[in-house]
Amino acid sequence: MRGVIMHGPGDVRVEDREKPTIVEPTDAVIRVTSACICGSDLWPYRGTDDAEWPIPMGHEYVGVVEEIGADVRDVAVGDFVIGSFFASDNTCEICEAGYQSRCVHAVPMGALGTQAEYLRVPLADGTLVATPGRPTPSQERGLLAASDVLGTGWFAAVAAEAGPGKIVAVVGDGAVGLLGILAAKQLGAERIIAFSRHADRQALARRFGATDIVEERGDEGVAKVKELTGGLGAHSTIEAVGTQESMMQAIRATRPGGHVGYVGVSHDVSLDGLELFFSGVHLHGGPAPVRRFLPQLIDLIMTGRIDPGEVFDLELPIEQAAEGYLAMDERRATKVLLTF
Amino acid sequence: MRGVIMHGPGDVRVEDREKPTIVEPTDAVIRVTSACICGSDLWPYRGTDDAEWPIPMGHEYVGVVEEIGADVRDVAVGDFVIGSFFASDNTCEICEAGYQSRCVHAVPMGALGTQAEYLRVPLADGTLVATPGRPTPSQERGLLAASDVLGTGWFAAVAAEAGPGKIVAVVGDGAVGLLGILAAKQLGAERIIAFSRHADRQALARRFGATDIVEERGDEGVAKVKELTGGLGAHSTIEAVGTQESMMQAIRATRPGGHVGYVGVSHDVSLDGLELFFSGVHLHGGPAPVRRFLPQLIDLIMTGRIDPGEVFDLELPIEQAAEGYLAMDERRATKVLLTF
Repeated sequence: MRGVIMHGPGDVRVEDREKPTIVEPTDAVIRVTSACICGSDLWPYRGTDDAEWPIPMGHEYVGVVEEIGADVRDVAVGDFVIGSFFASDNTCEICEAGYQSRCVHAVPMGALGTQAEYLRVPLADGTLVATPGRPTPSQERGLLAASDVLGTGWFAAVAAEAGPGKIVAVVGDGAVGLLGILAAKQLGAERIIAFSRHADRQALARRFGATDIVEERGDEGVAKVKELTGGLGAHSTIEAVGTQESMMQAIRATRPGGHVGYVGVSHDVSLDGLELFFSGVHLHGGPAPVRRFLPQLIDLIMTGRIDPGEVFDLELPIEQAAEGYLAMDERRATKVLLTF
Repeated sequence: MRGVIMHGPGDVRVEDREKPTIVEPTDAVIRVTSACICGSDLWPYRGTDDAEWPIPMGHEYVGVVEEIGADVRDVAVGDFVIGSFFASDNTCEICEAGYQSRCVHAVPMGALGTQAEYLRVPLADGTLVATPGRPTPSQERGLLAASDVLGTGWFAAVAAEAGPGKIVAVVGDGAVGLLGILAAKQLGAERIIAFSRHADRQALARRFGATDIVEERGDEGVAKVKELTGGLGAHSTIEAVGTQESMMQAIRATRPGGHVGYVGVSHDVSLDGLELFFSGVHLHGGPAPVRRFLPQLIDLIMTGRIDPGEVFDLELPIEQAAEGYLAMDERRATKVLLTF
């Protein structure tokens, strides 16, 4: 089968990989019908992460179940399924509390590489959720977004306690930040302030529910949010970048007692204890437990109430994956969908 | 009047200070009936904090209203009152959300120095809460604890979401940590693991509700908590020290999705973003909004359901304040009460 392999920073190739098979009786093998490139795939692409090259790429996926292990009960061959970027048993105490990405048996799907024609999914019963019937192409794009960027943006909005009466600020105008806006809107936020300086992303931010756009960054951006909120700051802030600047921007833009939901994978971030102490904010985040939200997100997508697939602004056949990485690296694309 | 002044690290003197008077029409002047020495008073005592010497000391107080400004409505001359270490209007949006220590008009009482015979309390209506009748000496000790250490321990337990079914770990066996145990117990925690290596504090911890004592610190202490919790960590952890080691101990002792309530004033603490990200914990803390809890705490104390005054293990007349500081610095006393 064909699959995407990164051989070093900037070196993305599509190669023949061995088709996966059932290893554990709890596995399923799915035929991936679409996959995508994540903002976090750019960290190794840009050489920011140490990596043991070559690495199979991708952790987002939707597809059709091709084969199941002897112990799989809840998905069947032929089902159209979505899973998160962590396989989880969905039965341990941590999963039951809603933190499936930290399941005691969690398996990172990124290690398997989902930008490929077929994918072995461990702990299939706990990981995969089947759709009610076959999705339309537009729904499929939305479901693919649910696999990570929508699920992650949704978690960030929930962690930030976005909801009725709340003013929400969103740091980061990538796919996760944009879908965090959509999530905050769905959760009933009163006002959503998006930080963005790109016209196309501003437009999508507004379509997803942003009421205000702030082009300034860092402390200037913070000052702008304060200005928009009677000097107090946002109730809820979504952090969807993962840099020192973005984290401090999020914390400082939030009022005392407010909530910061952070989902950008932290890179060289160090939080000063005393500043955090006196900020008085709630801080919660980490790898999003997307599995928690999948049933709800699938329902919203399949009934047409949300269209997160809009976040994909470039679609390429898998053979052109390298161009997809380049387009995202150069910010010519927000989110690239790969077809098979 | 007599009051405690610190002239430099280790240099505590009791001196004549000018008796305060009403400055703003929203002020009250109270006759302090008891005050106490806080663990945080030891930071300047030990030379850890930069300070502009000399500084008036103390931020905890109970007393009787002596005089009120023209605009004060809710407390009257003769009332027995308790306030927090931040004066607050209790009407702004931040106060209404329960974060009175970050009131838009907050005044730190430490700047006024409560270890003195009389005290000017700004924003008296928002800051002071009167007791129903005159407290007994034992109740007065409890109310004095409510002014900071109990209120702070209570906030930490609330921030850590201690409650029914929860396993709570408590880092720090000073007055705040010990009263955090009492708070967790009152909030219905199922199991309370106290970190402590001092026999007398262990005994008080157990009296306040601790079910398990862990003597190990740092990563060894974390391993012990994991061992006691099926490998998962505590649901809720109270951090009541404020050092790098204690913060990391608290975060690492908490399971993914769990809650850390931190109230130790952070000194040279720096949190690594990536570790925090993958910990998956909720982090909330800061200067405790004690005012939020005062009505409830006063009720619990005046009806005899809690006896937080037990935390005072040394009582001295104010003229011997220096000995009180020394006893706490040398850990001969957990918490020193000063009488007038």
